Amino acid sequence: MKLSIAFSFLLASSTAFHLQSPSTRASALYAGVERNANFAKLAGGYLFPEIARRRTSYLEENPEMKDRVISLGIGDTTQPIPPHILNGLVEGAKQLGTKEGYSGYGAEQGMQSLRAKIAEKLYNGIISADEVFVSDGAKPDIMRLQQMFGPKVVSAVQDPSYPVYVDTSVIMGQTGEQDTNSKQYDKVIYMPCTPENGFFPDYSSVPRADIVYLCSPNNPTGAAATKEQLEGLVKLCKERGSILVFDAAYAPFIRSEGVPKSIFEIEGAREVAIEVNSFSKYAGFTGVRLGWTVIPGDLKFKDGSLVRNDFNRIMTTTFNGASNIVQAGGLACLDDEGLAEIDALIDYYLKNANILRETFEKIGYDVYGGVDAPYVFVKLPASMGGSWDAFQTILEKTQVVTIPGAGFGPGGEGFLRLSAFAPREAVVEACKRLEEALAPVSA
Amino acid sequence: MKLSIAFSFLLASSTAFHLQSPSTRASALYAGVERNANFAKLAGGYLFPEIARRRTSYLEENPEMKDRVISLGIGDTTQPIPPHILNGLVEGAKQLGTKEGYSGYGAEQGMQSLRAKIAEKLYNGIISADEVFVSDGAKPDIMRLQQMFGPKVVSAVQDPSYPVYVDTSVIMGQTGEQDTNSKQYDKVIYMPCTPENGFFPDYSSVPRADIVYLCSPNNPTGAAATKEQLEGLVKLCKERGSILVFDAAYAPFIRSEGVPKSIFEIEGAREVAIEVNSFSKYAGFTGVRLGWTVIPGDLKFKDGSLVRNDFNRIMTTTFNGASNIVQAGGLACLDDEGLAEIDALIDYYLKNANILRETFEKIGYDVYGGVDAPYVFVKLPASMGGSWDAFQTILEKTQVVTIPGAGFGPGGEGFLRLSAFAPREAVVEACKRLEEALAPVSA
Repeated sequence: MKLSIAFSFLLASSTAFHLQSPSTRASALYAGVERNANFAKLAGGYLFPEIARRRTSYLEENPEMKDRVISLGIGDTTQPIPPHILNGLVEGAKQLGTKEGYSGYGAEQGMQSLRAKIAEKLYNGIISADEVFVSDGAKPDIMRLQQMFGPKVVSAVQDPSYPVYVDTSVIMGQTGEQDTNSKQYDKVIYMPCTPENGFFPDYSSVPRADIVYLCSPNNPTGAAATKEQLEGLVKLCKERGSILVFDAAYAPFIRSEGVPKSIFEIEGAREVAIEVNSFSKYAGFTGVRLGWTVIPGDLKFKDGSLVRNDFNRIMTTTFNGASNIVQAGGLACLDDEGLAEIDALIDYYLKNANILRETFEKIGYDVYGGVDAPYVFVKLPASMGGSWDAFQTILEKTQVVTIPGAGFGPGGEGFLRLSAFAPREAVVEACKRLEEALAPVSA
Repeated sequence: MKLSIAFSFLLASSTAFHLQSPSTRASALYAGVERNANFAKLAGGYLFPEIARRRTSYLEENPEMKDRVISLGIGDTTQPIPPHILNGLVEGAKQLGTKEGYSGYGAEQGMQSLRAKIAEKLYNGIISADEVFVSDGAKPDIMRLQQMFGPKVVSAVQDPSYPVYVDTSVIMGQTGEQDTNSKQYDKVIYMPCTPENGFFPDYSSVPRADIVYLCSPNNPTGAAATKEQLEGLVKLCKERGSILVFDAAYAPFIRSEGVPKSIFEIEGAREVAIEVNSFSKYAGFTGVRLGWTVIPGDLKFKDGSLVRNDFNRIMTTTFNGASNIVQAGGLACLDDEGLAEIDALIDYYLKNANILRETFEKIGYDVYGGVDAPYVFVKLPASMGGSWDAFQTILEKTQVVTIPGAGFGPGGEGFLRLSAFAPREAVVEACKRLEEALAPVSA
């Protein structure tokens, strides 16, 4: 690089130019490809690999702790895939070895049978098969939505929130720089979600956004939005001409009566909302990879064109369909046997969430979430310092990996997220250690 | 929409404004989200769904032809997955049903064992494991590369070429509008590939580009670049400071001595090239979904930062890893038994290519490709009209689905691409019909 810069200076003098050989001239003229400026704006690494890095770094310094580490960090499923669903995956693989069962490229939007079954079993007919796009997961779907929206939209996010909404906005060039103090990006609208507002954003109190991201049950706060809250938000998005991207990846954890599992249970949502969803937490498919996005046929851009058409173009041009084996597993998930297996899995994780909740209540912390959600969001006492400090202290004292709230945006500072996806015995052991280590001296 | 536009006009008059209710005002002020202008630039649909649409439309009009249709169109594998590789997939699924074998989120870059095996078995140690990023396929990887490059790069493509390079450039906003006559996009550099230059582009004869896309063995022309050709191109990319994106998805079809299967066989390529690759054609994984991209640690942007770091950020932030089941299948592909099975599969398809080649030679057409490649590229006689016309004529006369060369860019006009991925009996039958229908009257 230094060489090239030196040559650039030389180029100012035309005599110097002639002294160089043709190939040297070329490299002086073209020092390479400019880095995409949006990447320089991205703060640090993506959250979850950063957590893994800190855990690894701790274990390098304390190798004797290796067997003691318990992860309540990243929301990663740990229970084996139940028999009926597993059989769907195994048979999906086996049939590829036969002439009759072999399949190559499928529709980029997913198998028609799976699209239809999702529409029927999970949306009760409010959504039709051709409004369902099957994919390899919610995270890549959020990126594909961003590609469709393009660089000029302004987004509003819950603060704190799942980091992918903001990070992909930065990658797309929708944002300005990150402010060093507030940790907020310029041109992103942050909607504070706090215990005071039940972790539900007041969109009416912030400027209009093109895209509003809402996750319910929420990652990281564990709050599940009520019907009234969602009705208000849908109405407001309609009035303001905003598209609501509703992330329902944790919907199966909702057990409370009357709490909507889909945004399309709300009147008018077909004209304003997109729903992103995933089998990851339904059936332990975090490593298997299967998700879907619903784009209603009623959703339009300002020029009247269908949002669904542009998303279809993104899917066909930049994606090649979810794995045929995995889609066969998805079909098995939605059989009656599969749905019953999913219920049992969710019961298991919800019981974990309850144990976590009760432990922190016992310690005397304020605890949120963990009821209709697999995440428990704990308010840290001021004595523990910032949430990254608390993360480190807890790791060192108890060998329990958590996630600092600040990893989910500036609004998460002062909180800690704990995941209920660990095995039961690990949750119980972690709670024992946390209780010992965190219980106030006065208690 | 009409209503909103009407209100916009009313807004010019301040008295009219006050006549509206608050919610009506809001919808008048905010008529919705602007469509991403890059989508309006995209011409027609993505090529392969368009072929499927025309085939369906033909069958709707001629339902009696349903059983006669033979697809030599999209390059979709048709042979079952061989036993050893299949076993890898089946076992990969089965182990998810056990406590010990279950796995959730994996590294977004792929299983370390698979990255290492790809580096060892396919790159002979020229590439290291941490330069290999495992993914769900070459097509989504090209989009991820584009996200990394951002909207400001200028790309050069072979003309004709696989449509994804240009379509994703348009989606990213790198291009201007498509010219109605030339069918070329503004700000894309088209490098003519013709029988005269052996379908290898002369990059020195066109303006410098940031990114140069090269596919070898080529889709659609079937040309496999020689060592000398690639050495010249790597040298030129280095001199001009261009990044070479080398699409090697058809590499296993190379059987001729001395023809490079990877760009990294060329000296200096580690400083200029990225290689995109896929198991789709290796092992019949078109529906299974597994690919990889190699970003050497020596490749840098103009500011000296590593390209690999930004790609790693894209992978971790916008992707969640290829399916664990599918990666287990990938490992089986690279065992000795798996590699032998791949060789046998490729033999089968290469024999098909040879049959297609000989048929068109017999008819008296100029034929290209089909030797180190699964595609045969046929020069159409002027009497057949444009390549979309020829596609339609052949479909109607013989019920054989092909792909018009023009679908691969303006430079493909006058050619037809035929795929060797159909079952043998279908290829033989198609050739019989093509010979009958296309043989010149004078013959």
